[in-house]
Amino acid sequence: MTSAQRMAAISPFIVMEILTRARQLEGAGRDIIHMEIGEPDFPTPPHILKAAAKALREVDIKYTPAGGLPELRRAIAGFYEHQHGIRIDPQRIFVTPGASGALLLVLGMLVDPGNSVALADPGYPCYPNLVRLYGGVPVRLAVDAGSAFNLTASLLEARWDAAMAGIILASPANPTGSIMQPDVMQSLVDCVESRRGFVVSDEIYHGLEYGTPTQTALSCSDTVFVINSFSKYFGMTGWRLGWAVVPMSAVDVAERLAQNMFIAAPTPSQWAALAAFDPENLVELERRRQQFAERRDVLCEGLQRLGFLLPAKPEGAFYVYADCRHVTPDSRAFALALLEEAGVAVTPGLDFGINHPERYLRFCYTASSQRIREGLDRLARFMRARP
Amino acid sequence: MTSAQRMAAISPFIVMEILTRARQLEGAGRDIIHMEIGEPDFPTPPHILKAAAKALREVDIKYTPAGGLPELRRAIAGFYEHQHGIRIDPQRIFVTPGASGALLLVLGMLVDPGNSVALADPGYPCYPNLVRLYGGVPVRLAVDAGSAFNLTASLLEARWDAAMAGIILASPANPTGSIMQPDVMQSLVDCVESRRGFVVSDEIYHGLEYGTPTQTALSCSDTVFVINSFSKYFGMTGWRLGWAVVPMSAVDVAERLAQNMFIAAPTPSQWAALAAFDPENLVELERRRQQFAERRDVLCEGLQRLGFLLPAKPEGAFYVYADCRHVTPDSRAFALALLEEAGVAVTPGLDFGINHPERYLRFCYTASSQRIREGLDRLARFMRARP
Repeated sequence: MTSAQRMAAISPFIVMEILTRARQLEGAGRDIIHMEIGEPDFPTPPHILKAAAKALREVDIKYTPAGGLPELRRAIAGFYEHQHGIRIDPQRIFVTPGASGALLLVLGMLVDPGNSVALADPGYPCYPNLVRLYGGVPVRLAVDAGSAFNLTASLLEARWDAAMAGIILASPANPTGSIMQPDVMQSLVDCVESRRGFVVSDEIYHGLEYGTPTQTALSCSDTVFVINSFSKYFGMTGWRLGWAVVPMSAVDVAERLAQNMFIAAPTPSQWAALAAFDPENLVELERRRQQFAERRDVLCEGLQRLGFLLPAKPEGAFYVYADCRHVTPDSRAFALALLEEAGVAVTPGLDFGINHPERYLRFCYTASSQRIREGLDRLARFMRARP
Repeated sequence: MTSAQRMAAISPFIVMEILTRARQLEGAGRDIIHMEIGEPDFPTPPHILKAAAKALREVDIKYTPAGGLPELRRAIAGFYEHQHGIRIDPQRIFVTPGASGALLLVLGMLVDPGNSVALADPGYPCYPNLVRLYGGVPVRLAVDAGSAFNLTASLLEARWDAAMAGIILASPANPTGSIMQPDVMQSLVDCVESRRGFVVSDEIYHGLEYGTPTQTALSCSDTVFVINSFSKYFGMTGWRLGWAVVPMSAVDVAERLAQNMFIAAPTPSQWAALAAFDPENLVELERRRQQFAERRDVLCEGLQRLGFLLPAKPEGAFYVYADCRHVTPDSRAFALALLEEAGVAVTPGLDFGINHPERYLRFCYTASSQRIREGLDRLARFMRARP
């Protein structure tokens, strides 16, 4: 078969290789501690499940409007007002099949073939792949602990050229858990928008913050494009429901493209998500957030004790991007051996870019504190046994 | 806002304009007969609803593998064996967010910028828009009653050139309800594949056939790309679940792209769809199919009585593409006036291409026979009242 040329550059994820091997080992009776995938162990919150069951009894599961159930768009707008004190016209909110759908939609609206799009390296591997899907060119800007792994205006100014069309920023970020300070975000957004570039702000880990709360890029400008989701903070991964907030001037374009790409997002998930903002559910999510904070501390302390470096303490999401330069010269070989020999699954830096990936491992604290402690014990034994 | 250039060519659907206006009129207390949208009035089959409710109680709603639940991929493979006598390796089946997702996936794998893709005109409006999304050039081939509104090998041979990369065929087709005969399909597939082009066969209306059953393009070749869905025959529109069957040589590429585009299809919908192939459910679907057949006959006879021409009797899906040349010179103005004055919503040909769209109206038989009769009565009164 001859594929489209873009497919040569759309790489598979190492994490899937790790996950597949982990499942094989489990199939053979091994106990595996999963710290490789970005999916928490928590089940769908009971309040959401109840709402979904009620919808199945009471609602006709038909197509919704392309932008989503009007009630849900209003509820999301209400959440921005309540959480961030920002008023968003519900028309600007497009409910999508996951944040994946929101990214597909927004990049489809923005990226012309040949456009450069700036991204932090390390960063989420789908960003460069989806930019390439539309013929764009991902420009990876190496970030490190000096900027808490964030893109900055000065990094961007140094690389901006005529081909540059915009940026994707993420806070809290995958794989580093870093959070962008408000002044850094503002100067970055100003820098891009003054050059007539677009800003896509991926806010999928919003709500999972363990120090200062993150701000939305909508606080910086009302012409940014925001991506968010019910998957992470709201605990609804398998429901595949996200949203995009687009500028008012882009509503018509988003509507046309959403009709063609999706028809609409899944209806049962939309009814379930309507209950996500209920006070009863938010109490449960706060309980989970506190557990994530505790897990993070267990993991960070354990890793540092074993000689991993954490030059910038992760402040959000559920990831630790650990510098393993004093532990191994090759994070990929280390991760594969750790899985085979000790039954601990983690993701090597290779999935997240080309900025010294051999020097990093991503650990997810998506397992319980007890399992994380067990994982750290196994890691310690594994490291002692190595030459 | 500056959008990507592709957006200039991605047109909105007139049907959405009609639907929005119909809802406004309903909001103002008018009774509207909906024959404009491709969504049947039947609710989700009870057997499916029961399976979904059970999944909510028993299953953890997490991400599934990118290609879908293994059980569901096997069940779909089993359906091909049972219905068509064709063995498909379940690995070749990718469960997607609706047939929309399957089209996005497959065209993303196949269409390079500048590639021409041949389509029947009239045809489903998303085809040209999704081809443009990836920088491809839709080449509309005018079809008429002479080929029962189907693409044919000779039409294609006459237009094939170096830029041509492949075709999208559909049987049963939207908006014409036409079905492609096996020999026509075989020669078309042979014609394209002998020129090293790709064949995407949209089989989303499979099962909704009222004469000879349709064959799948997988009967013609095992290197075609097939699109299908749980929306239409299986009555699960709002669940947003479809699938693609890809050639074995394309499995790896499809896997990589599906991971990036979707992560996975919605999990509750996948568990619900697992029950779609149960004998109890198939009995209910057969009952519905017979009702569609009856509705079609009511609608076709009524339209012919009123002076509409049906040069090729629709044999599948739930659409009648009626030639209104003896009724009105302008199908769009007619549709808008019919809605305002008589409360009957239908779609003008303009949504389906540039092949004499002013001469056609699409009527959906997605309403009950009784409502269709009422719609025909209103249509008759409306026509009598016109100058």
